[in-house]
Amino acid sequence: MTDLSQGIAFIDDEYVPVAEARIPVLDWGFLHSDATYDVAHTWHGRFFRIEDYLDRFHTSMAKLRMSVPYSREQIRAIMFELVKRTGLRDAYVEIACTRGLPAPGSRDPRNCQNRFLAFAIPFVWIADDKLRQQGLNLLISEQQRIPPESVDPQIKNYHWLDMVMALFEAYDHGADTVVLVDAAGNLVEGPGFNVFARSGNTVITPARGVLEGVTRETILELLSREKLDVRQDLLPATLARSAQEVFITSTAGGVMPVTRIADETVGDGRPGVLTAKLNDAYWSLHADPKYSVAIDY
Amino acid sequence: MTDLSQGIAFIDDEYVPVAEARIPVLDWGFLHSDATYDVAHTWHGRFFRIEDYLDRFHTSMAKLRMSVPYSREQIRAIMFELVKRTGLRDAYVEIACTRGLPAPGSRDPRNCQNRFLAFAIPFVWIADDKLRQQGLNLLISEQQRIPPESVDPQIKNYHWLDMVMALFEAYDHGADTVVLVDAAGNLVEGPGFNVFARSGNTVITPARGVLEGVTRETILELLSREKLDVRQDLLPATLARSAQEVFITSTAGGVMPVTRIADETVGDGRPGVLTAKLNDAYWSLHADPKYSVAIDY
Repeated sequence: MTDLSQGIAFIDDEYVPVAEARIPVLDWGFLHSDATYDVAHTWHGRFFRIEDYLDRFHTSMAKLRMSVPYSREQIRAIMFELVKRTGLRDAYVEIACTRGLPAPGSRDPRNCQNRFLAFAIPFVWIADDKLRQQGLNLLISEQQRIPPESVDPQIKNYHWLDMVMALFEAYDHGADTVVLVDAAGNLVEGPGFNVFARSGNTVITPARGVLEGVTRETILELLSREKLDVRQDLLPATLARSAQEVFITSTAGGVMPVTRIADETVGDGRPGVLTAKLNDAYWSLHADPKYSVAIDY
Repeated sequence: MTDLSQGIAFIDDEYVPVAEARIPVLDWGFLHSDATYDVAHTWHGRFFRIEDYLDRFHTSMAKLRMSVPYSREQIRAIMFELVKRTGLRDAYVEIACTRGLPAPGSRDPRNCQNRFLAFAIPFVWIADDKLRQQGLNLLISEQQRIPPESVDPQIKNYHWLDMVMALFEAYDHGADTVVLVDAAGNLVEGPGFNVFARSGNTVITPARGVLEGVTRETILELLSREKLDVRQDLLPATLARSAQEVFITSTAGGVMPVTRIADETVGDGRPGVLTAKLNDAYWSLHADPKYSVAIDY
């Protein structure tokens, strides 16, 4: 028997073990990475901000001129059903829409029937327990993130080759992960996360060229309760290097401290106080009915 | 019975009808578009410049730090076998390598076993017979092609959302296809093709930010036999608009005339003499044993 706790997918109107879920090679979601997706998560049996993920997913599909034969309510129901079938309390729930198959011989994306798929798998962490406690060693790559003039970063997309190559560069340098820059050398985002830096009373997160992550948004909400000057602005590499605190935010881990940038310590080299406070507050929201909804297993 | 003339794929060590070829949803070739590919073609039962496509594919894999358990000779043999099994004389033969499946819970691309796949399908044209005879109406989009600082365009890749969005824009304007620009507004490339413009005795094709296509390379070789000043340089939109001849080159069609740019005629509005000459010469090379090799069906 297949272990369904390793994940279940919904594709072509069927629920299947995630290891058996496959998409046609000819789907332009693969051959042109012509697709959008979103990833919500559950924590202790509750979906976190699921409506925000659904909002973004539908906005992304509309921008890409895609539509699927499932209503928002049906997609939400599929997400719940996936988690219920896996029995997972802490899960990563991805929903995706691909352009689909072209008509034979055609190169016209207007003629494709878009494909919806979804899957739930065990929660995935960007950084393991130890790294989240001691803090990450972050490389600032000179690799430029695909700019918004090419691909709208608000359309959550699978164009990750820039991130993958930067990640290899980070590993080569002994770093744990990597943040990419824009053409002017300002920090933008890393593979699956946003970045924040605190210098004194000022907290900056990049304003442009980034996915406005739901975790990022949650942290901005939490920061607005603090007596801090919080800005969405340019974040030059020099500013990040001289910051007292740097942290990254992601669905895949919440708020994670960065304690080294290219082997130089950030602040005193220990995870920052604000970082820890935000992380605690972030995870507390997961039990708050204003932010989360229980799954009826 | 499945009609194998519609295409056959080779995936996970098996030959299957292309319509049945699927890749796992969790393969990072899909979820991160972490993949490279190449497309050779056969014409009248002969592979065209297959070694050049194999060269590029292996260079791309090396740049992405990928490797597959098939030698170059085995990949070439698979390409021939695919075409033989379809019986197609004029075919499009795609080879691809994906990052593969991550270890459960891991986000480290170094731990993936890369996946090789290939398929042969009937030859696909960018433009149909009529369009190739009368010439295409090309839109110059303001959409910027993903720049080389983000993704090396010499690594042939599936990051096409910029091209897809530009293509929708072209269709909205009644154009047949589209060329994207760089940050300075110079023409770069379009979905699956390179572009050339002739003004008087000078022929320019963009030098930077483009895939150096095998067809582009072939046309540069053919142009070197002409008494023309041929340059790989910047190609500003104004220069393209005022050119006497504009054409696009692609494996998916050879040399195709552009007779309108955003509804304004190029030159006298008819396909150019040089364009036609190059197209004839290009297709003639397909019977030349120096450029092509016969398939023993």
